[in-house]
Amino acid sequence: MDESEPARADLVVVNAGEVITCLPRGDDRLGRIPDGIVAVAGERIVGVGTSDEVARRVDLSGATPLDAGGGIVAPGFVDPHTHVVFGGSRVEEYAATVGGSLELFRAGHTTGILATVEMTRAATVEELTDSAAARIEAMAVHGTTTVESKTGYGLTPECELKMLEVNRRLDEAMAVDVISTFLGAHAIPEGMTAGRYTDQVVAEMIPRVAEAGLADFCDVYCDEGYFSAEQSRRILEAGLDAGLAAKIHADAYSDHGGARVAAELGAVSADHLNHTGRGDMQALAERGVVGVLMPGLDFAVAHPRPFDARAMIDAGITIALATDLCPGCWLESQQLVMALAARLYGIPADDALLAVTVGGARALALDDRGALAPGLLADLQIWDAGTHLDLVYKLGRNAVVTVVKRGRVQVMEPVEAMT
Amino acid sequence: MDESEPARADLVVVNAGEVITCLPRGDDRLGRIPDGIVAVAGERIVGVGTSDEVARRVDLSGATPLDAGGGIVAPGFVDPHTHVVFGGSRVEEYAATVGGSLELFRAGHTTGILATVEMTRAATVEELTDSAAARIEAMAVHGTTTVESKTGYGLTPECELKMLEVNRRLDEAMAVDVISTFLGAHAIPEGMTAGRYTDQVVAEMIPRVAEAGLADFCDVYCDEGYFSAEQSRRILEAGLDAGLAAKIHADAYSDHGGARVAAELGAVSADHLNHTGRGDMQALAERGVVGVLMPGLDFAVAHPRPFDARAMIDAGITIALATDLCPGCWLESQQLVMALAARLYGIPADDALLAVTVGGARALALDDRGALAPGLLADLQIWDAGTHLDLVYKLGRNAVVTVVKRGRVQVMEPVEAMT
Repeated sequence: MDESEPARADLVVVNAGEVITCLPRGDDRLGRIPDGIVAVAGERIVGVGTSDEVARRVDLSGATPLDAGGGIVAPGFVDPHTHVVFGGSRVEEYAATVGGSLELFRAGHTTGILATVEMTRAATVEELTDSAAARIEAMAVHGTTTVESKTGYGLTPECELKMLEVNRRLDEAMAVDVISTFLGAHAIPEGMTAGRYTDQVVAEMIPRVAEAGLADFCDVYCDEGYFSAEQSRRILEAGLDAGLAAKIHADAYSDHGGARVAAELGAVSADHLNHTGRGDMQALAERGVVGVLMPGLDFAVAHPRPFDARAMIDAGITIALATDLCPGCWLESQQLVMALAARLYGIPADDALLAVTVGGARALALDDRGALAPGLLADLQIWDAGTHLDLVYKLGRNAVVTVVKRGRVQVMEPVEAMT
Repeated sequence: MDESEPARADLVVVNAGEVITCLPRGDDRLGRIPDGIVAVAGERIVGVGTSDEVARRVDLSGATPLDAGGGIVAPGFVDPHTHVVFGGSRVEEYAATVGGSLELFRAGHTTGILATVEMTRAATVEELTDSAAARIEAMAVHGTTTVESKTGYGLTPECELKMLEVNRRLDEAMAVDVISTFLGAHAIPEGMTAGRYTDQVVAEMIPRVAEAGLADFCDVYCDEGYFSAEQSRRILEAGLDAGLAAKIHADAYSDHGGARVAAELGAVSADHLNHTGRGDMQALAERGVVGVLMPGLDFAVAHPRPFDARAMIDAGITIALATDLCPGCWLESQQLVMALAARLYGIPADDALLAVTVGGARALALDDRGALAPGLLADLQIWDAGTHLDLVYKLGRNAVVTVVKRGRVQVMEPVEAMT
C-alpha cells in the first residue's frame, strides 16, 4: 500500500460491539477491538481498528456502511477437514447405531464408508454437486467461508476424478471457497488389498489427479484396517512429488504411526490424533504440523478414546477444529464444534475460536484468511452475541446474522417474530 | 362434531411428504401418514389423514393452503421443564468451568443459582420479560410451541411473585403458550436454613401464589444440599392443597427420596432421575408419573452419572425430554435435546420424538396438544427433512421452516442463498 495515497474502501463494517481480529493485539491474543470497524476494498480488507485508526489510513468517504447492530465481527470460519461431497445419506444406520439395533441393521445393509462408496458411485456429477451445495450453504449460514472437501468415496480412478470435478464445480458456483483434497486412500475397495490399492493410488491415480490440476492436497487414512504407516508414506510422498501438499488421518483408532509419518514428511496437518502419544505430539509441534481435532465426529461415533487437546496445546501444536462433516457425522456448524470442544475436551473458548479461524487456515496452508487484517481476504461474519464466549455457552443456537465473503455481503434474513 | 354438517377448515397444510401425528395408527406408534394433510379451523385441528380421509369429514373449500414443500409435518414441541426467566447470564462462569479455571473464577464471583438470584432480584419485571421473550422466540424458531417456565431465582415472596408476573406477561404477549410453575423451593436463600425456608414457602408463599392465580404447578428441588424428601413432601402437599399440581426435581445428584415422594403424591412429573433406582422407577410407572429427562443439562454440567433412559422405558415410565434452559444450560432447541438423547443416552429416535411432543404434554398434564388429531390445538411445525430420523442425525441444524401455533401461521423466512 502506498502510504501517500490512502486506500479507498467500498464497504465498511460499523457499529460493532467488538471486532475480534484473531491476531495478537497488545497482550490480547484474540486481538479484540471494542467499537472497532473493518474497511474493505474489493475482496480484501484494507483497514481494521478503531474508527480513528482506520480513518488515518483509509479513505472511507465512498464506502457503503454495513451495520453490525452492536454485535461481534469475527473472521469467517475455516473448516479444514470435511467429506462434504457424497451420495445419499446414512441416516438409518445412524439411528440404528444410537438406538442399539445396529447388528440387526447390518444383516440387511452395507454400512460405513463402503455404503457411501456405493451411493457415490451411483450418483451423477450434478447430483453430487447439488447435494453438497446444500450442505455448504448450511455451513455458510453458520459462518463458514472456506471449506476443505475430500474425495474418497469413489476408490476408482474414474469416480475419484468425478469427485474432484464436483469440488471444482462447487468452488466455482458457491460464494464459499472450496479447497480440494484427493483422498483416494480413504478405504480399501472391495476385492483389493491395501498393498495393491496403494500401488494403484501411487502409480495411476496421483499422476492423473495432478495432471487434472483439481486438488491441492493429498490425504490418506492411516489406521488399523486401512493403510499402514509405510503405505501412507508412499502415498503422501508420491503426492508431494506431484505437487500435492500432505495431510493425514492419523491415530484415530489406534497408534498406527500416522503422526510420525506426518512429522517426518512435514505434512500440513495431522487429523484426529486420539491415540497420539506425547513424543509424537512433540514431533508434530517441532515440524509445525497443525493438529486437526474433530469433536463432532467423536461425538457422532461415540469415540471410546478422547483426544488430549490440552496436552497438544501444551506441546505447542497449532490446533485447528473441523466438523469432519461426512455421512457418519452430519454436522455443518463450526459453532457446535466449538461448544463440543469446550465442554467435552476442555478446550478453552479462546483457543476454540482461534482453532476455527487462524487454526483452520493454517491447516490448509492458507495465509490470506482466518483473521482480520489489512491485505487479508474480507471473509468475516457478524454475530448476535455479547461475547465470543456465548458461542460455547449458548448451545444449539446460530449466532450468525450476516456473512461477508470476499467483500460480498451475504445477508441472513432474521426469522419473523412470533409474538 | 356433528357428523351431518362437516367442519369447515380455514387452513389446510398440504404437500407434506409425511404427517407424523405422534398417535398410534395401525402398528405405527408415530402415526405417520405419507402425503397426509392437516385441516385447521380457528385454533383447533379438525382433520388429519390422507386427502380422501379428511375430505370426507371436513369442508376444505374455503381453506387457505399452507404448502409444506414436501417436508414433514409434526406436532409443535412441548418443553416441559425450563427456567427461562432469569436476570443476567452466567457465560463467564460457564467458560471458566469448561476451560478448567472455575476455582480462580470463584475467588472473585458468586456462582451457581445464587448468582442468578442476585441478578434476578436486581432486574425489573420489564427487563425479565424482555430477556425471556428473546429466549422463547429462539425456542419457537426451533419448533417449540408450549414452554413451561419456573420461578425460583427470587427466593423471597416478592421476587417469586415478580417472576410469576413475568410468566403471565410472557404467556399473554407471546404466540407460544407459557405454563407457569412456582418453584420457590429452588435453593436455600442466604442466611436461612432449609427448614425455616420450607416453613416460609408453606405458610406464606404458596397461599399468596395460589391467591394470585399465577401458577399451575408447584415444584421443589429435592436433593443433597437443597430440600429433604420430608421438606419436599410438605411443600408439594401444601401446593396440592392450594390447587397446584406437583412436580419435583428428583434424584439429580443423589438418591434423596425425590422419586418416592413423586410416586406417593402422584406428582405429574419427576424430573432429572440420574440416581433413581429400579424400584422407584417401578413406582413412578405404576402411579403414572412422567419422567422428565434433560440430556442438555447433563451435557452442560458434565454430569457424572447418566440417567438410565432404557431402564425407565422398560419400566413403563412415560418419558418426556426437556431443555432445562437455565443460566447453567443455555439451550433453546428441543432438536438438539433429541440428538443428545439419542447419541448420549441411547434413546431411540422414535422415542425421542414422542418425548418432546406427547411426552412433554403429559409432563404438563395437557391433553389438548403434543399430537395431531381432530379437537387438539393446531400447534404444528414443518421440517425441511426427509425423515424424522434426520433430527437426531443432522447435528446442530435447525430443520424447522414453519411453525403454526393455535392455527396461526408463523413463517420462518429462509436465509438468503450465498451462491
